[in-house]
Amino acid sequence: MLKTPYLLFLGDAPDQLAAKVAQGIRHWRPESCVGQLRFPGCNADVGLPDMTVEEARKAGDQTMVIGTANRGGVISPAWLETLVAAAEAGMDIASGLHNRLTALPTLVEAAERAGTRLIDVRVPQQEFPIADGKRRTGKRCLAVGTDCSVGKMYTALAIEREMRNRGMKATFRATGQTGILITGSGIPLDAIVADFMAGAVEWLTPDNDPDHWDLIEGQGSLFHPSFSGVTMALIHGGQPDALVLCHEPTRSHMRGLPHYALPSLEALRNLALETARIVNPDVRVTGISVNTAALAEEDARKCLEEIEACMGLPAVDPFRQGAGRLVDALSA
Amino acid sequence: MLKTPYLLFLGDAPDQLAAKVAQGIRHWRPESCVGQLRFPGCNADVGLPDMTVEEARKAGDQTMVIGTANRGGVISPAWLETLVAAAEAGMDIASGLHNRLTALPTLVEAAERAGTRLIDVRVPQQEFPIADGKRRTGKRCLAVGTDCSVGKMYTALAIEREMRNRGMKATFRATGQTGILITGSGIPLDAIVADFMAGAVEWLTPDNDPDHWDLIEGQGSLFHPSFSGVTMALIHGGQPDALVLCHEPTRSHMRGLPHYALPSLEALRNLALETARIVNPDVRVTGISVNTAALAEEDARKCLEEIEACMGLPAVDPFRQGAGRLVDALSA
Repeated sequence: MLKTPYLLFLGDAPDQLAAKVAQGIRHWRPESCVGQLRFPGCNADVGLPDMTVEEARKAGDQTMVIGTANRGGVISPAWLETLVAAAEAGMDIASGLHNRLTALPTLVEAAERAGTRLIDVRVPQQEFPIADGKRRTGKRCLAVGTDCSVGKMYTALAIEREMRNRGMKATFRATGQTGILITGSGIPLDAIVADFMAGAVEWLTPDNDPDHWDLIEGQGSLFHPSFSGVTMALIHGGQPDALVLCHEPTRSHMRGLPHYALPSLEALRNLALETARIVNPDVRVTGISVNTAALAEEDARKCLEEIEACMGLPAVDPFRQGAGRLVDALSA
Repeated sequence: MLKTPYLLFLGDAPDQLAAKVAQGIRHWRPESCVGQLRFPGCNADVGLPDMTVEEARKAGDQTMVIGTANRGGVISPAWLETLVAAAEAGMDIASGLHNRLTALPTLVEAAERAGTRLIDVRVPQQEFPIADGKRRTGKRCLAVGTDCSVGKMYTALAIEREMRNRGMKATFRATGQTGILITGSGIPLDAIVADFMAGAVEWLTPDNDPDHWDLIEGQGSLFHPSFSGVTMALIHGGQPDALVLCHEPTRSHMRGLPHYALPSLEALRNLALETARIVNPDVRVTGISVNTAALAEEDARKCLEEIEACMGLPAVDPFRQGAGRLVDALSA
């Protein structure tokens, strides 16, 4: 969907956290990045050469990606001049923010004149079929979580990287806006119309070589009442051979829902297996990915040991330890 | 959403089956109907007085409802003249067909001139919030099926009617286009964007009197890979106190999916309870509604007896026997 390489737009990012999307792209797809564009006073830096629009274009840039978010997650009026310049220079522009590039008339006119594309990755870019549930060739691994935002995207990307490092055939399949910007393609599942959710996931993970792995980015949680339907469509559309459970051990309640406790990993394993077996009787849970960012090193080690002993499955924090043991288990 | 009473448009319906929607409205909401409009040669009849647009308007009609479908489920060019006349006479027009009233320029102009509304009930008419999963007052019953099209809407409407006959407070909550046309309001759940599915169901079934029952129309099936995400959103957004299992005993495979067998009623009971308990720990399965239309009387009786013995729950065909025993169980 997106043409590489990218110029990452950091603009007036007030701090490093505001450039999270750019950092993700830089971390997972360094080969897709030619540089970063920062305004004077920008407080973020993702370690790429600073470039103007003109310099980036000369360096071969095809797309400027909005890699930052101001408060509210919207496109700032202060960015407009630079966005217009990028479009006029012949770059596509891609954004995952809430308000749309295509809702900015000045920018739309500039892009039309230059024949470049404005790509709002939160907006589905095509129509999808209704799922048919047919068995597909190739292997699929889906990350499912005890909650939203527990590291499902990170886990799938870490597994993809480890598999590729080992020479295995592997493709991360993005289902959310950050994942789409990182890899340049995917589906914004939470913006797809209900009837077509599972069909979109099938479309995203088509027949493939028998030894190829799709690493499917998870969304929501079967236990999160706001988004469980999206998760269910991922499980049934994704037809996973393997599930990796994702968990954040210090979370006191479901994200955004103070009145809901997190499920246990056992409960997640059971419900995820039960639902996934409907489309793939041979599905297995192969490992557990624990986001221990909130724990000190020693506490993290203990936490992982306990989970591993209790669940009888490899439990790792891929950020601290890499995804090697998760890939070992998938390859077994 | 829709103003009553209705004139039911049968047009050139080739047979009674083509007027299924009109029949449903006539059966479940006779008090909402002033008449039917049929072209010469129409082979359907729902037993209402035949009326022209003018006669219906004089009889107080507010909305003309397209109660038929031609092959393909689209609005026929042969209907246009009558639709325009209805709009010009001051009627709203409502349709649940695939192509849209609002995509017919001549009709749109007529409606604008007359100040009447064109309502495509397959299209969401508003924005919905993201679900918050908070406990709501009042009671809710959701029909869940072993498959699509096994009688979930019929069952919920039959329970509503029986409850109202007993003087109980009860409201059928429509989640599909036929249900919306029958009751005049509801949500076209399968056309709502993924992130807002469960929130739309919460919106549809708000706080109510402690002794009021929402009878929520089910959609899809947890076991149907194409639509299970929609079902999950209904379960978590609907927060049911009671589940009624719906089943068609002669179905040889999941609707549209020859490679998928139907689940057992036990499997449906277990998975529906497990998922519903996430939002309502006290949820119960109270009864089973079996569509025995394909069976002779004696075979139907045996089938119901076997299911009742096996599941330990009242098993009835509400079409043959009424919903009395289902309501008894809900009231218990």
